[in-house]
Amino acid sequence: MIKRYLLTPGPTPVPTEVALRMAEPMIHHRTPEFSKIFSEVRVGLKALFQTAEDVLVLASSGTGAMEAAVVNLLSAGERVIVVNGGKFGERWTKICQSYGVEVEEIKVEWGEAVAVDAVRAALERFPGAKAVFVQASETSTTVVHPVEEIAALTRTRDTLLIVDGITAVGVFDVPMDRWGIDVLVTGSQKALMLPPGLAFLALSARAWKRAARPHLPGFYFDLMRERKSQGENTTAYTPAVSLVLGLHAVLAMLEREGYPNVFARHARLAAATRAAGEALGLKLLAPRSPSPAATGLYLPGGIDGGKLTKYLRDRVGVSLAGGQDQLKGKILRVAHVGYFGEFDIVTAVAAIEMALGKFGARVDFGSGVAAAERVLVEGLPSA
Amino acid sequence: MIKRYLLTPGPTPVPTEVALRMAEPMIHHRTPEFSKIFSEVRVGLKALFQTAEDVLVLASSGTGAMEAAVVNLLSAGERVIVVNGGKFGERWTKICQSYGVEVEEIKVEWGEAVAVDAVRAALERFPGAKAVFVQASETSTTVVHPVEEIAALTRTRDTLLIVDGITAVGVFDVPMDRWGIDVLVTGSQKALMLPPGLAFLALSARAWKRAARPHLPGFYFDLMRERKSQGENTTAYTPAVSLVLGLHAVLAMLEREGYPNVFARHARLAAATRAAGEALGLKLLAPRSPSPAATGLYLPGGIDGGKLTKYLRDRVGVSLAGGQDQLKGKILRVAHVGYFGEFDIVTAVAAIEMALGKFGARVDFGSGVAAAERVLVEGLPSA
Repeated sequence: MIKRYLLTPGPTPVPTEVALRMAEPMIHHRTPEFSKIFSEVRVGLKALFQTAEDVLVLASSGTGAMEAAVVNLLSAGERVIVVNGGKFGERWTKICQSYGVEVEEIKVEWGEAVAVDAVRAALERFPGAKAVFVQASETSTTVVHPVEEIAALTRTRDTLLIVDGITAVGVFDVPMDRWGIDVLVTGSQKALMLPPGLAFLALSARAWKRAARPHLPGFYFDLMRERKSQGENTTAYTPAVSLVLGLHAVLAMLEREGYPNVFARHARLAAATRAAGEALGLKLLAPRSPSPAATGLYLPGGIDGGKLTKYLRDRVGVSLAGGQDQLKGKILRVAHVGYFGEFDIVTAVAAIEMALGKFGARVDFGSGVAAAERVLVEGLPSA
Repeated sequence: MIKRYLLTPGPTPVPTEVALRMAEPMIHHRTPEFSKIFSEVRVGLKALFQTAEDVLVLASSGTGAMEAAVVNLLSAGERVIVVNGGKFGERWTKICQSYGVEVEEIKVEWGEAVAVDAVRAALERFPGAKAVFVQASETSTTVVHPVEEIAALTRTRDTLLIVDGITAVGVFDVPMDRWGIDVLVTGSQKALMLPPGLAFLALSARAWKRAARPHLPGFYFDLMRERKSQGENTTAYTPAVSLVLGLHAVLAMLEREGYPNVFARHARLAAATRAAGEALGLKLLAPRSPSPAATGLYLPGGIDGGKLTKYLRDRVGVSLAGGQDQLKGKILRVAHVGYFGEFDIVTAVAAIEMALGKFGARVDFGSGVAAAERVLVEGLPSA
């Protein structure tokens, strides 16, 4: 018998109360019942995004909303700046290039955050750049980029700041309007504790002005059309009804917990995971600007991370993420985004300790868990 | 946000695949569909009980099956011997006395197993005793009683051996026919990983002979009538249909795992819990004959176990059992019966470590988890 623990940075665990809500009998989407739920969801999403603008709901993965941002705000031949410090930075480049948008990349070493000076230099070198693309949290390298500082540069220029917040929104504080972000994107399967299948994005007033002018072609991801429909509490095309019902439940859960507490929970679980990694002598992938969504840990030399994650997933029941591309086989990524609690971190760390032992590494059983407990206990209520 | 962990010795966690099976549309019980499932369940239960006799399914809690054993096998004024070493031993006495059966109790100190010599002496003192009642595993004191040795005494006498196997059947090896147990009882909410609501019992050939003669009154728990109905793959009264569907799924899971592996899993989780307790300096409640279903640990002096379990349940989300009667407030019971895996033990131990810290006890974080991991890792497959 193997009990299964999904401890990856997306999909993430779905709370049972949310799964049960989604299992309720299907309702039709062109009904007052759905519209009422959708109108409440729209209010909740504004609080989540910290914006006065509409937050649009798309039936797609997060990549769909990334594409929507590109096609609604740019034209072929226009120049943009992309911060590429991982798989998701690379994705902005690929989307732009597939539509003939000219990309100037700021390459960032994996595990590092982009230097604000590098963004400033790029903006000065390409003053006609129409947009800067960046990840608030680059999931592949477990790094947080300095979005607030970048926004301070773009909001005084005629350059939009388009932010992938897929493992950031609802994880840590990303106040869209206050910072001056022009587009903020997220997905359902991270902090929102839902299955994949919904994406969200909001546009600033100046981004909506740009969207109203001619731009790249698109039909399904036509944001002006969606804005009109969703303003009437419906959607242009068939919405993912059960996921919207689940979202309704999730937003209520998050509001009950309170966003400052949600952010503190993520920060604490991340700090506990980093402490465990350090106690076990596992070097942090992103020591300088680590994400509260997931923690990357280098494995000891000689241990194949691909084999170790496969062993943990298939033989022990604990799913952690490995590394991608140049990090393949070298790292583990422990997630703490969404429906994660103290004992998920304890489980992940104990699983890593025992697996390292099985793979012949020298490991002091319990030392990682002890370090995690010393952080986690601070978040528990007093006796 | 609090994630909840049910780590008590019943109810125990229900696997999601079983919960989903039970959530399927209700079927009628007087149908070929139900009869086919019931016939397969009957075969599976014989393997579980290790008996060639029928295993009857009752819609009741385990106590119902205990009462069924008493009313079908005894008459008022008859004398029986009850091993009373905890709350469930006491229950045999109470059931017998409420029907006017004369009880001779063998009192056993809580945390200790009954001495075989004490049973032998009682049988010699009361040669006319019609039955000996005992728990295979006394859940309240986390003790295993020596059923095999007691059966060696009763099977050569005209005295039935009636065994409460509620936290024993499917937990460790209790071969009913081979040992010569006359009645074996269990419930759905322990090793069978189901919600409460089903009880099971099997009778030996000589117990069935006794049941065929006049006995105490009873209607719902009329075992001769149930045996006839269930032999035709139906039940005398309405069965708990969804629980039977869940049982069908559970028996398939247990057979896939293989009973020797099921027993080894329980033994390993119990050994890990005891090792953790010892490492944390928490005295074992039942050091000499501990149950593989749950482990009782004494709390350090000055710590109120009632408050600690309430804190863990309500504020941290981890439900452990406390002590009953004279053990109230003094002990914790960590369960490992049913749908429990390695990381449930890790979670329980980490929760105890952090709670002890919160309650002002001196505790070396991680030391209990480390001791548990050293046992658990032996049960994990090779890399």
